[in-house]
Amino acid sequence: MRGVDYYPEQWPLELMDDDLDRIVELGADTIRIGEFAWHLMEPAHGAYDFSFFDDVIARARSRGLDVVFGTPTATPPAWLATECDIASRFADGTARSFGGRHTACPNQPDYRQACEDVVRRLAAHYRHEAGIVAWQLDNEFGHEGADDCFCDACAVAFRAWLRERFGGDIERLNDTWGTVFWSQQYNDFDEVPLPRATITTHNPALRLDWLRFRSDTLSRFAADQARWVREERPGAVIMHDFPGGGLAKHVDYADVAKSLDVIGYNNYPVWGGQKEPLPPAEIAFGLDHMRGLNRGTPLWITEAIMGAQGHDVTGFLPRPGQAALWSVQALARGATGLCYFRYRQATKGAEQFCYGIIDADNRVGRRYREVRDVFEFARGIEPVLEAPVDAPVAILADYRSRACWEIQQQSILMDVPAEMARWHGLFHARNIMVDIVAAGEDFSGYRLLVVPHMILTDPTVADRLGDFVSAGGTVLVMFRSFAKDEDNNLAFGATLPLLTQEWLGVEVAETESVQSLDEFCLDRCADSWSGPAQARGGVFRDMLTAGKGTEVLYRYRDEFFPDYAALTRRNTGKGRAYYLGCLPDRDLQEAVVDALVADAGIAHVETPEDVEYVRRGEKAFVLNHRSSAVTCDLPGHGAIELAPFGYEIIEAVDAD
Amino acid sequence: MRGVDYYPEQWPLELMDDDLDRIVELGADTIRIGEFAWHLMEPAHGAYDFSFFDDVIARARSRGLDVVFGTPTATPPAWLATECDIASRFADGTARSFGGRHTACPNQPDYRQACEDVVRRLAAHYRHEAGIVAWQLDNEFGHEGADDCFCDACAVAFRAWLRERFGGDIERLNDTWGTVFWSQQYNDFDEVPLPRATITTHNPALRLDWLRFRSDTLSRFAADQARWVREERPGAVIMHDFPGGGLAKHVDYADVAKSLDVIGYNNYPVWGGQKEPLPPAEIAFGLDHMRGLNRGTPLWITEAIMGAQGHDVTGFLPRPGQAALWSVQALARGATGLCYFRYRQATKGAEQFCYGIIDADNRVGRRYREVRDVFEFARGIEPVLEAPVDAPVAILADYRSRACWEIQQQSILMDVPAEMARWHGLFHARNIMVDIVAAGEDFSGYRLLVVPHMILTDPTVADRLGDFVSAGGTVLVMFRSFAKDEDNNLAFGATLPLLTQEWLGVEVAETESVQSLDEFCLDRCADSWSGPAQARGGVFRDMLTAGKGTEVLYRYRDEFFPDYAALTRRNTGKGRAYYLGCLPDRDLQEAVVDALVADAGIAHVETPEDVEYVRRGEKAFVLNHRSSAVTCDLPGHGAIELAPFGYEIIEAVDAD
Amino acid sequence: MRGVDYYPEQWPLELMDDDLDRIVELGADTIRIGEFAWHLMEPAHGAYDFSFFDDVIARARSRGLDVVFGTPTATPPAWLATECDIASRFADGTARSFGGRHTACPNQPDYRQACEDVVRRLAAHYRHEAGIVAWQLDNEFGHEGADDCFCDACAVAFRAWLRERFGGDIERLNDTWGTVFWSQQYNDFDEVPLPRATITTHNPALRLDWLRFRSDTLSRFAADQARWVREERPGAVIMHDFPGGGLAKHVDYADVAKSLDVIGYNNYPVWGGQKEPLPPAEIAFGLDHMRGLNRGTPLWITEAIMGAQGHDVTGFLPRPGQAALWSVQALARGATGLCYFRYRQATKGAEQFCYGIIDADNRVGRRYREVRDVFEFARGIEPVLEAPVDAPVAILADYRSRACWEIQQQSILMDVPAEMARWHGLFHARNIMVDIVAAGEDFSGYRLLVVPHMILTDPTVADRLGDFVSAGGTVLVMFRSFAKDEDNNLAFGATLPLLTQEWLGVEVAETESVQSLDEFCLDRCADSWSGPAQARGGVFRDMLTAGKGTEVLYRYRDEFFPDYAALTRRNTGKGRAYYLGCLPDRDLQEAVVDALVADAGIAHVETPEDVEYVRRGEKAFVLNHRSSAVTCDLPGHGAIELAPFGYEIIEAVDAD
Repeated sequence: MRGVDYYPEQWPLELMDDDLDRIVELGADTIRIGEFAWHLMEPAHGAYDFSFFDDVIARARSRGLDVVFGTPTATPPAWLATECDIASRFADGTARSFGGRHTACPNQPDYRQACEDVVRRLAAHYRHEAGIVAWQLDNEFGHEGADDCFCDACAVAFRAWLRERFGGDIERLNDTWGTVFWSQQYNDFDEVPLPRATITTHNPALRLDWLRFRSDTLSRFAADQARWVREERPGAVIMHDFPGGGLAKHVDYADVAKSLDVIGYNNYPVWGGQKEPLPPAEIAFGLDHMRGLNRGTPLWITEAIMGAQGHDVTGFLPRPGQAALWSVQALARGATGLCYFRYRQATKGAEQFCYGIIDADNRVGRRYREVRDVFEFARGIEPVLEAPVDAPVAILADYRSRACWEIQQQSILMDVPAEMARWHGLFHARNIMVDIVAAGEDFSGYRLLVVPHMILTDPTVADRLGDFVSAGGTVLVMFRSFAKDEDNNLAFGATLPLLTQEWLGVEVAETESVQSLDEFCLDRCADSWSGPAQARGGVFRDMLTAGKGTEVLYRYRDEFFPDYAALTRRNTGKGRAYYLGCLPDRDLQEAVVDALVADAGIAHVETPEDVEYVRRGEKAFVLNHRSSAVTCDLPGHGAIELAPFGYEIIEAVDAD
Repeated sequence: MRGVDYYPEQWPLELMDDDLDRIVELGADTIRIGEFAWHLMEPAHGAYDFSFFDDVIARARSRGLDVVFGTPTATPPAWLATECDIASRFADGTARSFGGRHTACPNQPDYRQACEDVVRRLAAHYRHEAGIVAWQLDNEFGHEGADDCFCDACAVAFRAWLRERFGGDIERLNDTWGTVFWSQQYNDFDEVPLPRATITTHNPALRLDWLRFRSDTLSRFAADQARWVREERPGAVIMHDFPGGGLAKHVDYADVAKSLDVIGYNNYPVWGGQKEPLPPAEIAFGLDHMRGLNRGTPLWITEAIMGAQGHDVTGFLPRPGQAALWSVQALARGATGLCYFRYRQATKGAEQFCYGIIDADNRVGRRYREVRDVFEFARGIEPVLEAPVDAPVAILADYRSRACWEIQQQSILMDVPAEMARWHGLFHARNIMVDIVAAGEDFSGYRLLVVPHMILTDPTVADRLGDFVSAGGTVLVMFRSFAKDEDNNLAFGATLPLLTQEWLGVEVAETESVQSLDEFCLDRCADSWSGPAQARGGVFRDMLTAGKGTEVLYRYRDEFFPDYAALTRRNTGKGRAYYLGCLPDRDLQEAVVDALVADAGIAHVETPEDVEYVRRGEKAFVLNHRSSAVTCDLPGHGAIELAPFGYEIIEAVDAD
Repeated sequence: MRGVDYYPEQWPLELMDDDLDRIVELGADTIRIGEFAWHLMEPAHGAYDFSFFDDVIARARSRGLDVVFGTPTATPPAWLATECDIASRFADGTARSFGGRHTACPNQPDYRQACEDVVRRLAAHYRHEAGIVAWQLDNEFGHEGADDCFCDACAVAFRAWLRERFGGDIERLNDTWGTVFWSQQYNDFDEVPLPRATITTHNPALRLDWLRFRSDTLSRFAADQARWVREERPGAVIMHDFPGGGLAKHVDYADVAKSLDVIGYNNYPVWGGQKEPLPPAEIAFGLDHMRGLNRGTPLWITEAIMGAQGHDVTGFLPRPGQAALWSVQALARGATGLCYFRYRQATKGAEQFCYGIIDADNRVGRRYREVRDVFEFARGIEPVLEAPVDAPVAILADYRSRACWEIQQQSILMDVPAEMARWHGLFHARNIMVDIVAAGEDFSGYRLLVVPHMILTDPTVADRLGDFVSAGGTVLVMFRSFAKDEDNNLAFGATLPLLTQEWLGVEVAETESVQSLDEFCLDRCADSWSGPAQARGGVFRDMLTAGKGTEVLYRYRDEFFPDYAALTRRNTGKGRAYYLGCLPDRDLQEAVVDALVADAGIAHVETPEDVEYVRRGEKAFVLNHRSSAVTCDLPGHGAIELAPFGYEIIEAVDAD
């Protein structure tokens, strides 16, 4: 799929033929349309009219262009917002004003009914339209704060969700949440509050259920939309375009992905207000997260960028070749579709400053030519793109643990997505591919697992991790993992970490959160370990007692607590598990990753900084993210010269 | 006019005669009264009673004192706020509590009717009162956030305003705003929202119309008040006292000024919480802005200060002579009236810590004597004050462009009023007088125009600027000028800058916002230019292609964009136009101003730093803003000695 | 009293006997229960049931344990919050959500009635229960923002309060507040607003009355609760547990204390998010404040801590011995009861991360053993604890002056509680005991008084201070004291300081607030003064004219104001008064305190830094707050060795 995001409704009709001709000349085979165009499809309640898009699709098809069609539910029309109260609410109860996007609440019955009506009508209307090769649901579920809402419809829905979860038994809820604390026993589900502002803080178990409910709100909305489309158009290919930052939102994208045939990803390495684009590793982190959603699902970049982007604050102009490189990076890391946002910069509306393939001046320029080149390149390497992305490492993602850390941050420095990106980056620097995988999925096929602060203890996951180690896997477990039960409570009468002590071989004797990155010293205490003799650490301090057979690699240097371990290692069955009790400094992080990679027997290829190497079958991509030329020595290739932001496909290197 | 702000209602009646006697002894000829005294005039709905002020005026007139009388509409009484909902609303919908000032919304019909009633009654009551020499409307329209309101009455009024603007045709609105973007087409004006908090951001054209409506709300309220007074008292002299910071508010004071016979200005060089007073150039900037409002209108300082000022946080005590110097500076720059805030510090109410000419202790002290000296000085130089202020330079102010930058700031460093003050300061340092003039006014009489970031393109203004250059004028145009149309949209099929390329001789090939002041290097590339060989720049980067006949003075040093110009110059007709694509460092700013001044043939007088020289006809003011004595060498005068905060009138210097 | 905070309702019944046995083994004689358990006592409206606590008390008594029973009013049950609107409101009008604590407003009639009902029922039920040795009212009145509320019931109550204060005469209110300013005259009490958000700021006299009303709301609620308990259980011992930070809240704890037989104090030297515990002097400041409340009332530490504490952010783990030392410090400074929060860490609810004597793992560990040792130590020194705490110095606390500084902060650096702590700390470093005493209490028995920024002038207090000096006392008065009248207005026709010039011997000629700590220089100008020749000062600058017989110790160095004094000293009768016009640097602070101590003839004992010496009768505590061992030389004792966080009881030293 090589496409452009084209919004024909935003331009005079007479431009369309020229536009489509130029889109074809660009090398595209697809246009993405329909999202956000509800009023055009239903200008008044029940008055459906798809004739505009009939015309667009006909013109596209006559040129051989396929269509990806989006449901318009992200932006309900003004008449609907006027007729009914469909507005979602900020935490303080203020309604979100009509005039932005995603301002309606999916739990609002009037909105949801209108969504079902328009989506069903739309899908039914195009039931036999072969030109539509995929259906996009809504747009960027939960982005920009749309994951949160505190409206009365959410209160009703939350209480229904709780009734379902607790089988209608309010005493089960009271028991599970421990509402006897602070006299919060509920006599009825209808007494349960939303976690709006209060004095001090709400019950942590309520808050976890609230965030699970928030996620379910969107994943169920996605599932409903998928069902509506599939029922009206059997066999429809269902896609959703996820935004960036997905690991920090109140929605578990791994759940949403279960309703999809294709993962779409809007890949914005730079956005308004950023001084510079994200570093290559962070762009890769987003791609690797998307690729890990419901693994095996095809991945499309639904919004690749060429120009500067932003709403009210604009920013960095990608340098010539730079945005093209980001596109190639996405292909290298698994994308099989590439669609540019957007064909032409809008002249009106909130996104005027999102520059497109061509600008509002409507002239063919540098960016048009760059996209044409990328498309040509992509067409030439289709066999390479069919090779699987082979990742020996997985970082486990756990929506509930992440939610738990948001509810109780414990250390003001704690940021789970950032920590995941930190460890991902260490592998990226070694050109080792990593999948970000939901803990609920099967991870037995990896060689190495990173478990970042998985504070909630799912017994099944704990067991599967033990099995993984026994079977020969390597695991790194980060501090405060397995410290709480599944309901966000502490466990009575048990020591930490819960359910994993057998294979981790440690017990947490004392623990404290630390409000700095560099708070204490660590001393190496194992001859078998080649890492630095001393290191610094912070953020948290799990003080560990090592069990028999557990090797202590570092201890905390402390006048009062001299005996506690900071980093341990234990062999179980054929595998090995590490427990890291604090966040160490960069040098020790590097040493830990080196040890993990060696233990897991993972080969890798070394490249200069900011040169990315990605193997795909017998071939490999080499990508130069620098703004200057670079020479890269690779075994069997000699010196490869790469231009600024240059890239090449080479024969894959036999890595050490 | 030499006056004091006297609030006789705030004191026991028995003090009034003594107070007025001392006011006369001070050398004052006027008292300013009435503002904020609504309850005294109408203690219950419809129960008007002006007897208190009858008495005050009689006592004043018996001593030869004139009266400036203020309408009391800034502070409606509690009974009105209790009877009706007249409260304006913060952006989140919260009502502004009774108990401050300006808490009623001028779009609220009950408030407006009560205003009309009390103002008409008041003016009619004093229809024949010769002692009232001027009428002040309200107080500081739009100050302290009173320019914004999000109440339901504003929603009604905004929609009426839009109906008027679009001739009742909702499709014209949809078309103009481009509401097809994000499915925001309105079927009726009543569906249009206020730009309250939403997800992401509102339509930029809606927001521009909202800010135009905000401005019209206040300028129409001012016009109504002026009409009410004039109808009841034919021939009334109408004044309004503007606050500082006028270029950053949601009201175009140039519009308000059209209803006025006298511009009043409340001149606060220091306010609570400031560690130090504003520098002299910034005080001058405020004065020059006021003098430029509806040019030719007389200017009074309605609130000159002597003591420390502040509401809850107080601050810097002006040093002996310092506040007096600020008064003389105002006279030098065009004020013909001088009224001190306030005669005596209040003992009660929110402004207790605004120190007056005398303090709550009611003793004559240093500040009383300083005011007496200033009045005496002012009386002695009346012929000088009659000479016009002659400014060869104008900086154009454009409310809509400023609003546009607020709506879409683009670079986080962008602050148009601060940029205007920056360039004004460079002229001030050279003792060159500058008017701040609304772009809609006739600017053909100036020699040099500075056009700061005039992003909205008014075709008439664009034409008049072209004519100005052809006729021999010099113009400096700053980056991002003429980038949008009048509705805050981009132009389709056109390159930037719009409508001005002929005489600017440049095209913007690429552009990017930059989030720092010092981001890139500029290289001089014209032998004819004597500015620095290299400079640094930031904030924005318009990358310019110079047309034939356009001289490139600096280029950006950039590995990818080596050919784009940063500063250009072009002769057209008898004049010359500069385009500056970024904000350069201070040295290059100085070089640009030197070049502009030379091109425009503007003579100026050099003085030591912080010594201000202002010519008025054959005479000139020399003002020492330093806290230490200074010697100033001026051609034909030799060494002039100025005491700390000292000033003198001298024969004007023949400037080079 | 040696107790633990035990929440038996939070645990399975079958744990209780073991728990109580271990509590007895710990050396405790008391359990504190009942607070927060409303729903358990009244699971539905009017359905009272105390059987759970009957059982708890029976089991406790059977082991010889006494009971402190708390009224449960801090956490009304969900059924009540659902039946009626009892929620208090944030300043913006948003209701505080059920789900935290203290979210009901004591001015809400339905809540107050329900409180009276449950408290009376509870006290009546246990009218003859000898095991209950004290009754705790609510929990931490006014903590965490519960001192503020802006609900409609508060509006009604505030107006009633004003009617009472002004004898129903609205003109007295208008006159007192000066409502003529900004036309704020009220025709009726019902027109008076709450000081909700407005434009600029509310009338300062209204705001002072508002903060007095806020305080009265809580002190009257406390008095009511005390009355309900005493009426139902004659002879009940009434206690309330105050939180930290009491001098910064909108409630005058000295007023609340008048209803109490015992002062309880929840002593948290460290809380979530703090990198380190409070320094010893600040912990002492809190204790000395509590001990000063209604002097002579016994003081209990109701919540002493052992482990790390925090809600959502956790933090510092007290080192071995450190929390025990804090307990001993509290005993040294006057506590006669010691109750630990909490017996066992909760597994559920908002306070999971408040670690207890034992953790959720239910194992006896280090902290259990430390508490046992403290209890043993305390039992062994009971005669020492019976000796009075003898403080020669008092720092005066004045709720209204503090409120006044909050209303009008004047300098952004002004923080009265922090300033009180600053001066307290200087005495603490000298091992001189200080009481924090409400200005309204009898302070004639002290030798030295510190008067920190007592801006409101109570004529009685002013007189009593004068008498104190005449009788031989030493007084230090800090800048801006006696600058306003009792209603938060300025005085007409008077110079500052009000009513105290006779014995202070100074007049404030000019004054300015200063927005930095280090703004100007001070020069010594008295031979008799041995302090530093020069010093620096800031925050404020009262420029003083010294009267005849007043010694000027320092002047401000200033080009314009060279003659004004900064620090003066005057003998009156047998005593001496200092006036300090600014906040001087640390060196001069030390010199001032040395002079005061010498003048007042106060002996003291020198110890190394962070070693605290507290005399109690013939004995003394020596406490080492360092994490390392220290040797302390004391006259008559030679070198005393103290372990890290170690302490000893020694024979009292004869101080110099």
